[in-house]
Amino acid sequence: MIIIGELINSSRKAVADAIENKDAGIIQKLSKDQDQAGADYIDINAGTFVGRELECMKWLLENVQKVTDKPCTIDSPDPNVIQAALEIHKGIPMINSISLEKERYDKLMPIIAGTDIKVIALCMSDEGMPTTMEDRQKIADKLVNGLVKNNVNIENIFIDPLVQPISVNKEFGMEFLCSIENIMKNFKGIHTVCGLSNISYGLPARKVLNRAFMTMAVSRGLDAAIIDPLDKKMMRAIIAAQALSGQDDFCVNYLQAYRSGMF
Amino acid sequence: MIIIGELINSSRKAVADAIENKDAGIIQKLSKDQDQAGADYIDINAGTFVGRELECMKWLLENVQKVTDKPCTIDSPDPNVIQAALEIHKGIPMINSISLEKERYDKLMPIIAGTDIKVIALCMSDEGMPTTMEDRQKIADKLVNGLVKNNVNIENIFIDPLVQPISVNKEFGMEFLCSIENIMKNFKGIHTVCGLSNISYGLPARKVLNRAFMTMAVSRGLDAAIIDPLDKKMMRAIIAAQALSGQDDFCVNYLQAYRSGMF
Repeated sequence: MIIIGELINSSRKAVADAIENKDAGIIQKLSKDQDQAGADYIDINAGTFVGRELECMKWLLENVQKVTDKPCTIDSPDPNVIQAALEIHKGIPMINSISLEKERYDKLMPIIAGTDIKVIALCMSDEGMPTTMEDRQKIADKLVNGLVKNNVNIENIFIDPLVQPISVNKEFGMEFLCSIENIMKNFKGIHTVCGLSNISYGLPARKVLNRAFMTMAVSRGLDAAIIDPLDKKMMRAIIAAQALSGQDDFCVNYLQAYRSGMF
Repeated sequence: MIIIGELINSSRKAVADAIENKDAGIIQKLSKDQDQAGADYIDINAGTFVGRELECMKWLLENVQKVTDKPCTIDSPDPNVIQAALEIHKGIPMINSISLEKERYDKLMPIIAGTDIKVIALCMSDEGMPTTMEDRQKIADKLVNGLVKNNVNIENIFIDPLVQPISVNKEFGMEFLCSIENIMKNFKGIHTVCGLSNISYGLPARKVLNRAFMTMAVSRGLDAAIIDPLDKKMMRAIIAAQALSGQDDFCVNYLQAYRSGMF
C-alpha cells in the first residue's frame, strides 16, 4: 500500500495557523511524523489561502523538503500552483490531481506529458461526479488513454474513482468498490487511490466506517490511499486487510506489526 | 445477516462441564443471552462426548427450547444424532451439516428431502477440503443440484465454502471471498454461511483478523454466520459492513446500533 500522508492541509486549523504565522517547526514536525509513521508521499495543500495559495504552497514545500526525503504530493485545483511547486520540488513528485475537467486537463497535460511525475487522475468531468461504476469506468478510460498517449507510464497513474457518502445513496459504497476492482483488472500496472473518509459523511462513528471501508477496498485491489498515517487503527486495518487479501507473503508484515505493538 | 449463535458447543469447557454436571441453568442462560443479543439460530454441538453424543444433544436441545423460541442448528457429523434431535425439535430447525462425503450425504438426504428444514451444505467431499474457488464451485454445484432434486427449496440451503487459514496459504482468504461472491451470483435465493475464525488460525490478534475478514465477506454477499453474538465488536463489524455494502436502507440499522451504544 502506497501511503499518502494527508495532514499538511490548510483546511486543518493547526496547519492554517502555522502558515499564517510562518511557523516552520509545526510543518516540519508533521512531515517527520508522517514520514516515520510510514508515509510514502507527503500531501501538501494550501487551497484555503485564496489569492495566496501559490506562495503558501511554495513555503510549505520548502519546509517539508528540509526534513524528509519522501516526495510530496502537490495538491491543488490550480494548475499554475502545481506548475510553480513542480519547479522547486526535489525528486519525483506526485500531482493531486488531473481530471477530465477541460480546463484542468488542458493545462496540466503538457506539464505531465513525457515526464516521470506520478499523477492522481480523478474520475471527474465537466458533467460532475459520476455515480455508477459504468460512468467511472468511462472517465477512467478517457483519462488513462489520454495520459498514455502523452507518454505517461501507466505505472505512474493513480486513478481515484471518488468515494461518495452512503448516507446519500446506499449503493455508493459498492459502486466504488467494484470500480476499484474493474480498474485494477482493466489496466495492468495502474494504481488506484482514494481519500475514503467521504464514505461516512453524515454518519456517526465515522472512523469505524472508514476503517471497515478501507478493509473492503484493500480486498478489491486498492493499492494507495490518502490517509492520516498517524492513525494507528487505520494503519493496522490496512496491514490486516493486506494479509487477508493475499498481499502479505507468510504474513510477514502482519507479524512484524504485531510484534512492534501495533495490535 | 442470519446469525447462528455458536456458544453451546461442548468443545468449550464451560459447556462440557454443564453437560457433565447436568447444569441446565448454564445452558439456558447461554440460550437466552444469545437470543437477546440477536441470534436467529442457536447452534448445539455435543461432539466431544463420543459414545454419549446422542443423549447429550437431546438434553441440550430440550433445555435450549425451554427458554427460547429461536430454532436450533443441530450440529453433528453423525446423521443418527441429527435424526434423533430432529424428532424432538419444536419448529423448523437447521442442520449443520450435509456435505458431499458419501456416507453423510446418503444418510442425511432422505431426512431432509421434501422438508422445510434449513440445511448447511459444507463444500467438502471424500477427496477432502477444496482449496481453489473452482473446486469449491464444483462441490457447491453438486450439493445444490442434489438438494434441489430432492425437493429442498433453494432458500433453505446455506452453502459453507469452508474458510482455511491464511497462515497456511496466503491465497486462502481471497479464494474464499470469491467463492462467496460466485455462489451468491450463480444460485439466486441461496444463502452462504461460515464459521470464519479458522481464517486467523496460527496468527496473533485473531479477533482483529476475524472482524476484518467478516467485513470483507459481507461485502461479497455472505448473509449468514456462525459466530458469538455476545461479541459486540464482531456484531458491530457486521452492522457497519452491511451499511457500507448497500444492505442497510438509509443506514437505519447502523444508526439504531449507534444510538443503542454499540459503537
